[in-house]
Amino acid sequence: MATSAPSSSGGGPDPNSTNLRPPSSSYDWSGVAHGCTRKLGMKICGFLQKNNNLEDKSRIVTNEQTNSNERDPRFRRAETDFSNLFARDLLPAKNGEEPTMQFLLEVVDILTTYVRKTFDRSTKVLDFHHPHQLLEGMEGFNLELSEQPESLEQILVDCRDTLKYGVRTGHPRFFNQLSSGLDIIGLAGEWLTSTANTNMFTYEIAPVFVLMEQITLKKMREIVGWPSGEGDGIFSPGGAISNMYSVMVARYKHYPDIKTKGMAAAPRLVLFTSEHSHYSIKKASAALGFGTENLILLSTDERGRVIPADLEAKVIAAKQKGYVPMFVNATAGSTVYGAFDPINDIADICEKYNMWLHVDGAWGGGLLMSRKHRHKLSGIERANSVTWNPHKMMGVPLQCSAILVRERGLLQGCNSMCAGYLFQPDKQYDVTYDTGDKAIQCGRHVDIFKFWLMWKAKGTEGFERHIDRCLELSAYLYNKIRTREGYQMVFEGEPQHTNVCFWYIPPSLRGLPDGEERRQRLHKVAPKIKALMMESGSTMVGYQPQGNKVNFFRMVVSNPAATRSDIDFLVDEIERLGRDL
Amino acid sequence: MATSAPSSSGGGPDPNSTNLRPPSSSYDWSGVAHGCTRKLGMKICGFLQKNNNLEDKSRIVTNEQTNSNERDPRFRRAETDFSNLFARDLLPAKNGEEPTMQFLLEVVDILTTYVRKTFDRSTKVLDFHHPHQLLEGMEGFNLELSEQPESLEQILVDCRDTLKYGVRTGHPRFFNQLSSGLDIIGLAGEWLTSTANTNMFTYEIAPVFVLMEQITLKKMREIVGWPSGEGDGIFSPGGAISNMYSVMVARYKHYPDIKTKGMAAAPRLVLFTSEHSHYSIKKASAALGFGTENLILLSTDERGRVIPADLEAKVIAAKQKGYVPMFVNATAGSTVYGAFDPINDIADICEKYNMWLHVDGAWGGGLLMSRKHRHKLSGIERANSVTWNPHKMMGVPLQCSAILVRERGLLQGCNSMCAGYLFQPDKQYDVTYDTGDKAIQCGRHVDIFKFWLMWKAKGTEGFERHIDRCLELSAYLYNKIRTREGYQMVFEGEPQHTNVCFWYIPPSLRGLPDGEERRQRLHKVAPKIKALMMESGSTMVGYQPQGNKVNFFRMVVSNPAATRSDIDFLVDEIERLGRDL
Repeated sequence: MATSAPSSSGGGPDPNSTNLRPPSSSYDWSGVAHGCTRKLGMKICGFLQKNNNLEDKSRIVTNEQTNSNERDPRFRRAETDFSNLFARDLLPAKNGEEPTMQFLLEVVDILTTYVRKTFDRSTKVLDFHHPHQLLEGMEGFNLELSEQPESLEQILVDCRDTLKYGVRTGHPRFFNQLSSGLDIIGLAGEWLTSTANTNMFTYEIAPVFVLMEQITLKKMREIVGWPSGEGDGIFSPGGAISNMYSVMVARYKHYPDIKTKGMAAAPRLVLFTSEHSHYSIKKASAALGFGTENLILLSTDERGRVIPADLEAKVIAAKQKGYVPMFVNATAGSTVYGAFDPINDIADICEKYNMWLHVDGAWGGGLLMSRKHRHKLSGIERANSVTWNPHKMMGVPLQCSAILVRERGLLQGCNSMCAGYLFQPDKQYDVTYDTGDKAIQCGRHVDIFKFWLMWKAKGTEGFERHIDRCLELSAYLYNKIRTREGYQMVFEGEPQHTNVCFWYIPPSLRGLPDGEERRQRLHKVAPKIKALMMESGSTMVGYQPQGNKVNFFRMVVSNPAATRSDIDFLVDEIERLGRDL
Repeated sequence: MATSAPSSSGGGPDPNSTNLRPPSSSYDWSGVAHGCTRKLGMKICGFLQKNNNLEDKSRIVTNEQTNSNERDPRFRRAETDFSNLFARDLLPAKNGEEPTMQFLLEVVDILTTYVRKTFDRSTKVLDFHHPHQLLEGMEGFNLELSEQPESLEQILVDCRDTLKYGVRTGHPRFFNQLSSGLDIIGLAGEWLTSTANTNMFTYEIAPVFVLMEQITLKKMREIVGWPSGEGDGIFSPGGAISNMYSVMVARYKHYPDIKTKGMAAAPRLVLFTSEHSHYSIKKASAALGFGTENLILLSTDERGRVIPADLEAKVIAAKQKGYVPMFVNATAGSTVYGAFDPINDIADICEKYNMWLHVDGAWGGGLLMSRKHRHKLSGIERANSVTWNPHKMMGVPLQCSAILVRERGLLQGCNSMCAGYLFQPDKQYDVTYDTGDKAIQCGRHVDIFKFWLMWKAKGTEGFERHIDRCLELSAYLYNKIRTREGYQMVFEGEPQHTNVCFWYIPPSLRGLPDGEERRQRLHKVAPKIKALMMESGSTMVGYQPQGNKVNFFRMVVSNPAATRSDIDFLVDEIERLGRDL
């Protein structure tokens, strides 16, 4: 177990510092004195120090070598030599407390530096490398695993390199996914969650988190509009699983025997969803044994919203074939267009034909927090179940997705298997708080705390302000480009959500007549601009084709760090990179 | 938005400090000087300070009030008044950098204090309260969410309270679940993962993590014994979902049409698993549309291992009824007994009858890392798929579970829906690295990094040492109690895994003849002792009935912090609490 000198690119200039602006290191960090309030116990006070020129590794000294008399003993410090320390020297090792604290604080240093840079527009969004480049080992960043342990110094270098070659999803100019931003309270919540390292399945080992989940789910149901917030729900590992729950629960409600007898116990069941809906509904149809052919896709209007008459016609046609229409998914905020299906009209049809109504509000659910925008989900209170991902529009760190169910008991009925080793009925507390048997999972990650903490810290009104602001920003983009030369909107009218879908038409294509040649050339524009963007690292935005429409950009705003200047930057960047295509 | 004085119990004595030993605050924290090596950029150096008597809230001062000339300016610090700061003052707010850093460091102070106490045996494992007590608000710890934001001071108090009323799953005397311990490297990995806050679905936004997953899965397949580590796999949100994947993939391999046509496209399919197997196999049977009645439970020997002849007999019986045997789950490390099914014998039968062989090594998979113990999984290389949860026996923080599949392409074939907005074929990089379409999820949490980092830091040999040590400890317990007065083992012989299952017989029951009265009274002993344990907060261990056996303790060791003295403590504690029952 010889100690090898850590390989690293950490000593060189940071490739994530672009030349867009002077590097932020000119900020006077040495002046940022700070401290910590504390009521009890040990105190760690961090302090910040500008140290860009201190790269001499030989400066490492041990505690013993520090002349602590030179200054207030409370502020004694020393450099730690991590090159001779290993994981086995940390807690629970004997005398492991000190190196553990030092190691964790060093990690925190790396992380807080990353956080700071994330919000710094002079830092790149990413430093792109191809898979083969990273696999070959970038400047000593070796991804391979080995028999022997690495020193903690190498581990710290690996942490730095991991962040360096990653993507800053919290950067003000990262617009690539529905989830973006880096909420500081949420981040603190995740750090605490990791430190608590427990499991949601029983009250016994997650008492506080179980109650936080219960309270938060009730609040969400109130906001959906179910009387007194009654109903049920659970946090799941993402919107796809939440949507899968909705289909499972609907099936259990209509044909409870399927749980024991399988799909053979039911007639041929059909499900309905829009052709613009998220692909997870299709995944659920396949996984749960319905088959994707029994998921009937509904036509939409030009804005991507389900046409209710098409639903009714397809329900009638299915019934005529002897199939049983069972489940309808209405999307509240579609992935690409940000479209909101007309829930009330769909609910009327669901009631008429006795079908389960699920609202997939993974993306659009956040708008329920806004008095200005929640009308777009009008009718959601008539849904039997709702998916709502706080990790999207509400800026909660990944993962945080809720499935809400209006009728109590169905989740439990559908999924419970009464495992004796976890859900003992003879515990000393009220075991109805053991929620694990509702889930299709056994162990379940604590996804609630960061969300609960953010809600405490922002208040309901804070989420509302965030959402209104994101929608204002996307309206700004829409108004900026809708009549601008070289842009063509994918659909007419102001977007319902923050999704702004558009083609950028390079000058060389502007004179071309509509037709196959133009289509083929236009199809290549967005991928090309995106590739250039990623290579320059300046910003990221998504693109895709949809139906018979060739590749177009889908801009979305959920990042609280984004401003109008970032929108302007994106437009400039598209034009800069696309001008000569 | 008036600032209210934060309500807190944080100022009082910590109820988690028990009288088992003098509180650890007598440790000389002020002497723990430490620092951070750094190559570049801003420096944060934490230092530790004993401050138990400083409870004067009025000491809060702002930066401006600090006389920084009194000492080396690099060590200037000041108390921050978080009572006038709110989430909206943090990044991305203008001038938000400084309060953000201060807030995060204060959170880290709370977390490192928690980490330190977790390993301190004078700290309680938990401070138990009933749900109604916590819901009523413990000393001002208010779980309800509100319209208005709380100050950051209150948020910090909430963080402290959340940890205070939680359960220390990393405590050396926490034996309640298969997942225990608090690995410092893993913790650092989770903190970094939270800070990176990205999603595994595409290489585009998780390049490093995607490659780490690929490399780690390959290594795991090599260890399973598949030639050159070939095959496929994915990390999933827990063992139950991994097991569900195995059934899905098996079904796709045997009846690919089910994906499109549903279960109606296949004959009546039956699955087999041991009556001692994890309940997730049953959950998967229900969820995927097989029906729990089509999951046939296999008899086991007295040690909880499947009897291969019983499997073959039941396969033949099923075929005679016209059903199609499709899938067999062999458990490698059962949840309660820690039993390993005889994989080779089961594999012979699977080959003979053309059935998919899945090995659920969620709990026992870790033993593959030990040259001494891996023979217990002999034959696993013949499996078609394997579940292996590093978050159990390998001590990785929750969640970290892998499903490994021997045949490449099945996961993709089974689950892919080719969503155009994520998995564009015209990206500039090799899109085979976009792994998201293999999953039943869309967004997927980064579970790999902490595991990869632990592997780097410990080396393969570090995991081996950890596993061997845990098994030695459980052998110590077994040998200690197997002939001890007042104990009765649930099954004879040394346990295969760390599970030691036993009854404690209080003196009042020792004279009773076998029979219903003794059974009924014995059934109540473990729950009663467990309740007393939780109320005293001294330790936690699981119990359950199994088959016709009344409640017994299931002791498991996966926590690297546990020592023989903790095992001795547990035995003493059971006897102390159970003596007078």
